[in-house]
Amino acid sequence: MPTLTSLQLTDLSVALLKAAGASDQEASVVTKLLVKANLAGVDSHGVLPNLISYINGLRNGVIKPGAKFEIFKDTPSTALINGNWGFGQVICSRAMELAIEKARQTGVGVIGIFNCNHIGRLADYAQMALENDMIGFIAANSDPSVAPYGGRKAILSTNPVSYGIPAGQERPIVVDFATSMAAEGKIRAALYKGQQLPLGWIVDSQGRPSTNPADLYAPPLPPEQIKLAGALLPAGGHKGYGLGLVVEVLGGALTGTGCSEEVTSGLTNGVLILVLKIEQFVPLERFKETVDKLIRTIKGSPRAESFSEILIPGEPEFREEERRSKSGIWIPETAWANLVEACRQYGLDAENLIR
Amino acid sequence: MPTLTSLQLTDLSVALLKAAGASDQEASVVTKLLVKANLAGVDSHGVLPNLISYINGLRNGVIKPGAKFEIFKDTPSTALINGNWGFGQVICSRAMELAIEKARQTGVGVIGIFNCNHIGRLADYAQMALENDMIGFIAANSDPSVAPYGGRKAILSTNPVSYGIPAGQERPIVVDFATSMAAEGKIRAALYKGQQLPLGWIVDSQGRPSTNPADLYAPPLPPEQIKLAGALLPAGGHKGYGLGLVVEVLGGALTGTGCSEEVTSGLTNGVLILVLKIEQFVPLERFKETVDKLIRTIKGSPRAESFSEILIPGEPEFREEERRSKSGIWIPETAWANLVEACRQYGLDAENLIR
Repeated sequence: MPTLTSLQLTDLSVALLKAAGASDQEASVVTKLLVKANLAGVDSHGVLPNLISYINGLRNGVIKPGAKFEIFKDTPSTALINGNWGFGQVICSRAMELAIEKARQTGVGVIGIFNCNHIGRLADYAQMALENDMIGFIAANSDPSVAPYGGRKAILSTNPVSYGIPAGQERPIVVDFATSMAAEGKIRAALYKGQQLPLGWIVDSQGRPSTNPADLYAPPLPPEQIKLAGALLPAGGHKGYGLGLVVEVLGGALTGTGCSEEVTSGLTNGVLILVLKIEQFVPLERFKETVDKLIRTIKGSPRAESFSEILIPGEPEFREEERRSKSGIWIPETAWANLVEACRQYGLDAENLIR
Repeated sequence: MPTLTSLQLTDLSVALLKAAGASDQEASVVTKLLVKANLAGVDSHGVLPNLISYINGLRNGVIKPGAKFEIFKDTPSTALINGNWGFGQVICSRAMELAIEKARQTGVGVIGIFNCNHIGRLADYAQMALENDMIGFIAANSDPSVAPYGGRKAILSTNPVSYGIPAGQERPIVVDFATSMAAEGKIRAALYKGQQLPLGWIVDSQGRPSTNPADLYAPPLPPEQIKLAGALLPAGGHKGYGLGLVVEVLGGALTGTGCSEEVTSGLTNGVLILVLKIEQFVPLERFKETVDKLIRTIKGSPRAESFSEILIPGEPEFREEERRSKSGIWIPETAWANLVEACRQYGLDAENLIR
């Protein structure tokens, strides 16, 4: 049962989350963003494997359904949010809305979030800002999985960043990357799919380079409660390490979430959001024309050997979303089996839910 | 005459800038930051080769001494500065002071700068913020020199970023890197020193990978007015390309400076500054303790093979500054000859100035 429409996957995910204790609204917000990641081709941040982690989180009390979105500190341009350990997607969507509102009023909104669970794919939040004709930035730390440059033990988290920039006639620019060579979810996806990794992505428990995704994890496999034995490596050596360290501090120290081993749950995210109102600086139309022109200049420039096209960040995901909206979302067998089993435990029939 | 003390280099630079038309204050601010770059070991951003570019800029009217620092737009948390083509260091230092003041008042200061010449090394401005117990961020675009990922023509600038983060007992974190594999100044420094480049830094005019720094430039060499024939490559493939594109937009489109080929002078910088007041989010002491702990965890963690030590971003530069403050600053022969000749043209005797 490997290929589902986004509607089938949505029904299944909503039913399962509600059965596990989420409210209608929570199940709907979380599912929407997970399915969107699958549609965009970013399976590591999609329904599988994340839904299983969330169900476990609900079961063991790490994720608290119905948690209050608490504005812990508030000024015209900044806020600090206590998420009270609710669903990350629910907390972070509201925080991004608040940042956009602050930017609308004062030109800039900066919001930190603590006591927050996994927010999923960062690009979705950056995109909320650009859909409001603003520039969006979001960064998040989590539990340690990445070795510092020159080290071999997991000290930093994958510390991803995402930037959303509106264009005029062209598609917007959406940058979204982990400051490690790859996100942990990508290694897990490779593990589920039985694929090898490129050299340089991970080291094993002895600090040796490895192409086997299993070497990242402590047994037993597949990792239900993720425990690392090896470490991910930073992207681009000292540059990814430097940017990652900044994100560790912005997400961890500036929000009070904590850094490195202070983050003990694999579901925790310390989040920093920044939104800029473009008209505060230059007229919106002029900005969009400049961005359009830049995009066209890039796409029209001569290609390097072995490239058939020059892509704008976000473009592969936009295209994949169009493609999968028609062709459906393929779920690997192992992941599907996990999902069917999770449904069974809540008295749900997966096959029936997608009929 | 290859090794000077920072005082000798300062005297020489101040005298030459004043002879070329800079005010006392301009000559002093610009020199201070150029010499600081030399001390930190970042020669590409030091007195040589930049002083010669600035002298040429003064001569051909690109740099306007005595230019007014004009606050073009102003709100409590944001501002847009018209630098009126003055010295970048003078404009940007004042803009950073203004951003710090805004952050002190409102928690955050975001400032864009247009009509601005070369600001030099970004880390110095990020450091101003952290010395005020704030988090500083600065990014700048310039004229095109970097190919997009998948391309081979110079469309983007090197689009550097710098972040300054205060620590408590430990040295602060200062991240500063170009989103290209290397800054253009590093290629020029290699050219002056007669060194080869690592493979993957540049492509020649035909898009072929090259290790010869001369392949980046159009003849004649050495490049007095820099004109590129080849292109620099982005750091870390699509990640450096993505971050670089964001900086191109923040520095170029959001400030009105312009992007890519719209920037025609090699001395232009479009600048975006962001300063965050830490206490707006968490107590300062708690923040500093968290950062100290993170730094100690990283430095105390097991090293990768072939590394004798794990460094914190900024640490190599702090150490080099201590070292060169004692040992002096070595100036390559070609660069020194250029400097002596520039002095001669203004009736100054370089040898005498450093006596």
